[in-house]
Amino acid sequence: MNGAESLVRTLLGCGVDTCFANPGTSEMHFVAALDRIPGMHCVLALFEGVATGAADGYARMAGRPAATLMHCGPGLANGLANLHNARRSASPVVNCVGDQATYHRPLDSPLTADTEGFARGVSHWVRTAGQASEVGRLAALAVQAARTAPGQIATLVLPSDTCWDEGGAVAAPLPAPAAAPVAPLALETALRVLRSGEPAVLLLGGAALRAGPLADAHRIAAATGARLLAPLSNARVERGRGRYPIERVPYPVDAALAQFADARHLILVNARAPVAFFAYPNKPGRLHGGAQVHELARAEQDGAAALAALAEALGAPRVAAPEAPRPEPARGAINPDAFAQSLAALLPEQAVVVDESITFGRSLFPGTHGAAPHDWLQLTGGAIGEGLPLATGAAVASPGRRVVTLQADGSALYTVQALWTQARERLDVTTVLLSNRAYRILQGELRAVGANPGPTALGLMDLGNPDLDWVRIAEGFGVPAARAETMEAFNDLFAQSCAQRGPFLIELATG
Amino acid sequence: MNGAESLVRTLLGCGVDTCFANPGTSEMHFVAALDRIPGMHCVLALFEGVATGAADGYARMAGRPAATLMHCGPGLANGLANLHNARRSASPVVNCVGDQATYHRPLDSPLTADTEGFARGVSHWVRTAGQASEVGRLAALAVQAARTAPGQIATLVLPSDTCWDEGGAVAAPLPAPAAAPVAPLALETALRVLRSGEPAVLLLGGAALRAGPLADAHRIAAATGARLLAPLSNARVERGRGRYPIERVPYPVDAALAQFADARHLILVNARAPVAFFAYPNKPGRLHGGAQVHELARAEQDGAAALAALAEALGAPRVAAPEAPRPEPARGAINPDAFAQSLAALLPEQAVVVDESITFGRSLFPGTHGAAPHDWLQLTGGAIGEGLPLATGAAVASPGRRVVTLQADGSALYTVQALWTQARERLDVTTVLLSNRAYRILQGELRAVGANPGPTALGLMDLGNPDLDWVRIAEGFGVPAARAETMEAFNDLFAQSCAQRGPFLIELATG
Repeated sequence: MNGAESLVRTLLGCGVDTCFANPGTSEMHFVAALDRIPGMHCVLALFEGVATGAADGYARMAGRPAATLMHCGPGLANGLANLHNARRSASPVVNCVGDQATYHRPLDSPLTADTEGFARGVSHWVRTAGQASEVGRLAALAVQAARTAPGQIATLVLPSDTCWDEGGAVAAPLPAPAAAPVAPLALETALRVLRSGEPAVLLLGGAALRAGPLADAHRIAAATGARLLAPLSNARVERGRGRYPIERVPYPVDAALAQFADARHLILVNARAPVAFFAYPNKPGRLHGGAQVHELARAEQDGAAALAALAEALGAPRVAAPEAPRPEPARGAINPDAFAQSLAALLPEQAVVVDESITFGRSLFPGTHGAAPHDWLQLTGGAIGEGLPLATGAAVASPGRRVVTLQADGSALYTVQALWTQARERLDVTTVLLSNRAYRILQGELRAVGANPGPTALGLMDLGNPDLDWVRIAEGFGVPAARAETMEAFNDLFAQSCAQRGPFLIELATG
Repeated sequence: MNGAESLVRTLLGCGVDTCFANPGTSEMHFVAALDRIPGMHCVLALFEGVATGAADGYARMAGRPAATLMHCGPGLANGLANLHNARRSASPVVNCVGDQATYHRPLDSPLTADTEGFARGVSHWVRTAGQASEVGRLAALAVQAARTAPGQIATLVLPSDTCWDEGGAVAAPLPAPAAAPVAPLALETALRVLRSGEPAVLLLGGAALRAGPLADAHRIAAATGARLLAPLSNARVERGRGRYPIERVPYPVDAALAQFADARHLILVNARAPVAFFAYPNKPGRLHGGAQVHELARAEQDGAAALAALAEALGAPRVAAPEAPRPEPARGAINPDAFAQSLAALLPEQAVVVDESITFGRSLFPGTHGAAPHDWLQLTGGAIGEGLPLATGAAVASPGRRVVTLQADGSALYTVQALWTQARERLDVTTVLLSNRAYRILQGELRAVGANPGPTALGLMDLGNPDLDWVRIAEGFGVPAARAETMEAFNDLFAQSCAQRGPFLIELATG
C-alpha cells in the first residue's frame, strides 16, 4: 500500500468521507487512490478558496470535518483566507496539501514555497510527512486535532514521494477531546451574579446558539432579568418560528457600546468579551464598558450544559417562544426591510441561510425572526469572499434542505467560481446576489475614520463602470439566473427556485 | 501630514506612480490621501490576486515597481500566489498592506491575522510600521528593496493608526543597487570553456533574454559552436522577425535531459542550473546531466554586459538574424500548430504576449518565431492563475501596444475577475481563452507518475459538466467576447480585436 492509499483509508476510518479538492500534479497519487478505494465523496472546486470555504460550511452543518485537497504552497495560499474564517468559526477542517518530493525540495524548482509557513497562521496543527510509512499515523493525528473541541484547523503537508512510495500503513482513529464541563466555581459565580439582581448580559456564542441552549438562556433571562446577546458574527444560529430569538452585538462601535452601557456584569458562554471589528480614531476597542467579565464557558467547554445547569439551579420555569407571525411577502420597491419581510415569508422549512450580506443585510437578521425554522450562518473571520463557498459546503452537508445565500456583490467576486461547483453537484442553493455595484461598506468606513472622499477614493469603491452582469456570470458558470428589480419579481423567482432542485441565482437590484 | 500622506508622497518621490488596489477598511486613510495628492494612477482589482499579478506584469514591462494595496492578513493571503510568481520572475513589487491599529491588535478582533507571517514566504523584505513618523522612511526602504537587482518583493505592513496619526515625514529616494558587473574570473572561465571547442550550452535567463544580449549570444554561438537555451519559463523574452530566436528547456523530463545529453559545459547567464518542475518516480531532478556548471552571471549581475564582453573577446562577428517569413493565417480545424501559424501571421507589431497556455500551448513559442517583433511573458513560478492579471498589468505599463493573452481555461478561473479591471481601464488586451474544458495537464501528470485514472480521478480533472461559457463570463465582467470554432473565425475575431481599442475575449474551442 502506498502512502496515498494509507491516507485515504485512514481518513475514511476516522469518519472523514468528504473532500473538497483542487488538486495539482503533486496530488496525483491521492487522486489515483480515490479510484481504488470507495467511499470518499470528492467535490471539485475551481479555486482553493472555494474548497476551504466549503469545508467550513460543511463542518458547521455536519458537525465533523471534511478534508480539503490543495496543491503546494501557492495553492494552499489561495485557500488561506477562508481557513482564517474557518478558524474563527471553530470549524474542524483537515487540509491535505501536496508538495514537492522530499528529495526534490532542495532543488528549489519554480513551484517550491514555504508551505508550512503559509499554513501556520491559520492552523492549530501543522505537520509535514517525511516518509510513506508515517502518512497514516499523521492523518489520524490530523483528524484528532481537527475534532478537538470546539473544532480546529489541521494541515498535513504531503511531499509527493510520501504518497507514491510503498510502506503506507492505515492508522486507527484517535480519541478527540469533546467539550469539557465548565468549572464548578465558574458556575457558582454566574449563579451568584444572576441572583444579585444587578444588570447582567449573557453573551452566547458557538454551540450555545443552538435551539436547546437558547431556550435555557431564555429561561434564565426571564427568571433573573439578565439580557441575552450574541456576538456580531456566528458560525451557526438555530432560529425562526417556535424558537428563541437572540440579538447580536451591532457592528458600529457606538451602537455596540450602548448595548453594554448599563451592564454591571458580562457572563461569557462560548464567547469572548466583545471588541470592535476595527479601531477608529478616538473610539474604544473593548465594547463592554465597565461591566465585570465572568467567563462561564470557554470555547472548548460545554456552554450548553452550563446553561441548562444554571436554569435548573435558578429554578427557572420554561418560557414560551415568543409569537412571531409569518408575514406576507413584501411588494413594490426593493429595500432592506422589504427584503427581510419577503425572506421571513418565503424561507422554506429548515432552510440554511448563509449571510454575507454586509451593508444591505444589517436588518435581515432582526427582520427574519418570524421565518420558518432555519439555521443562520455568518462570516466569522471578516475575510470577505466566503458566502458562495460556505453555501456550497453547507449544501453538501445538508441534503434535502434549501440553502439560501444572502450575498453582497463586492464580496461575491472573490470566490465566484463556487457557482460552478454548485451547478456540478446540483446543490439546492438559491443565491440572492445583492447588487449595489459598490463597496458600500468602504464608503461608510471612509466616513467613520473621518476621511473626506474625493474622486479617486470614490473610484476605488465603485463597482460600476462597467456594471457587473450577474445573470451572465452565473449562467457562464452553469447556474441559471434572473434579475429582480421589484419585490414581486423577487418573490416569484425565490419561491420558484425553492420549489425546484439545483442552484439558482437571483440578482437583486439594490443599488 | 498624516502617515498615509507621507506614504503616498514618498512612493511618488521614489518613482512609484501606479497602484493596483483592493483596499479595505484599514486602508481608508491611504485612499483619502490619494485624493489630496495628484499623480498616483490607482487601478482597482476585485481580488487581491489580480492586484499582485498585475503588479508583476507591470514591473516586467515598465522595469520599475508598482505598489499594491491590500487589506490585512487574509487580503494579503489572497495575493500570495501571484507574489510567489513575481518573486520567481524577479519583478520589483512594493506591497502596502493595511492592518489592525497597533493598539487594537492585542484584542484579536475577527480579521486579525499573522500578516507578517503570510508575507515572509514571498517577500525579500518585510517590515511593519510602528508609528506614523516612520512610515515615509520605511516606504523609501521598501522601494529600495524592490529595486535592488534583479528585482525583489518588498512588503510594508501599515497598522491603521500609523496612517491616520499626524507626524508623517516624506523620505527621499534611496539608491538601489543596479546589476553588478560579473567577476573577471567568471568571464575568463567562460572564455576558456568556449574556446576549448568542447560541447557547451549557454543557458540565458532574466535580462539576458532581451534583443541586444540575444544578438550577442548568437554571435558567440556562431563563433564557438556553443548552443543557446533559455529556461522553461521566463519573465520576458524579446523576439520575433528581425530578432534572434532561442529555444527553451522542455517541460517533460526526458526531453529536457536530451537537450543536455551531449553537453560538457553549462554556462549560466542570469539563470540557474535547470531542474525538473516536479519530481517523478525514477527520474532525476537535475537536468543538465554530466555537464560542468559555470556561473557566468548570477541573477543580480549584468549578464547582458558579460555577453557583449565575451563576444568582443572572442572577436565574434555580427550574425544576421535568421529569416523567418511571416506565414499566412491558418484555415480549417483548430489545433496547436494551426493556432501558432495564425498567431505568427496576425500578431501586431510590438505586441506583448502573455503565455499561460499550459498544455495546448507547448508549440506556440517555437511556432511564432516568424511573428512581428513582440515580447513574450510567461508564468515563472508555476502558480497557475496569473495570465489574466499579468496581462492587465502589462497593458497598464504598455500603452499603445496590444497585449495578447494565451490563456488555458482551468488556470483562467483562479483570477477571472481581472477581466473586469481590463474593461474598467479600457486596456488593449485580447484574451484567447483556450477552452478544452479539462485540467488537461493533470491528465498527463497522472500518467507521468504511473497512476492509472478511474472515474473518480477523471472527474477531478474534468471542467465540463457543466461546461463553462466563457463568452457569458467575459460579458458578465464587461468584456465583449465571442467563440471561435474554426481557424477562420478565430482569424477574423483576432484581427478585429487588434484593430479596435479595449479588451476582447475569444473563446477558442480546443477541446
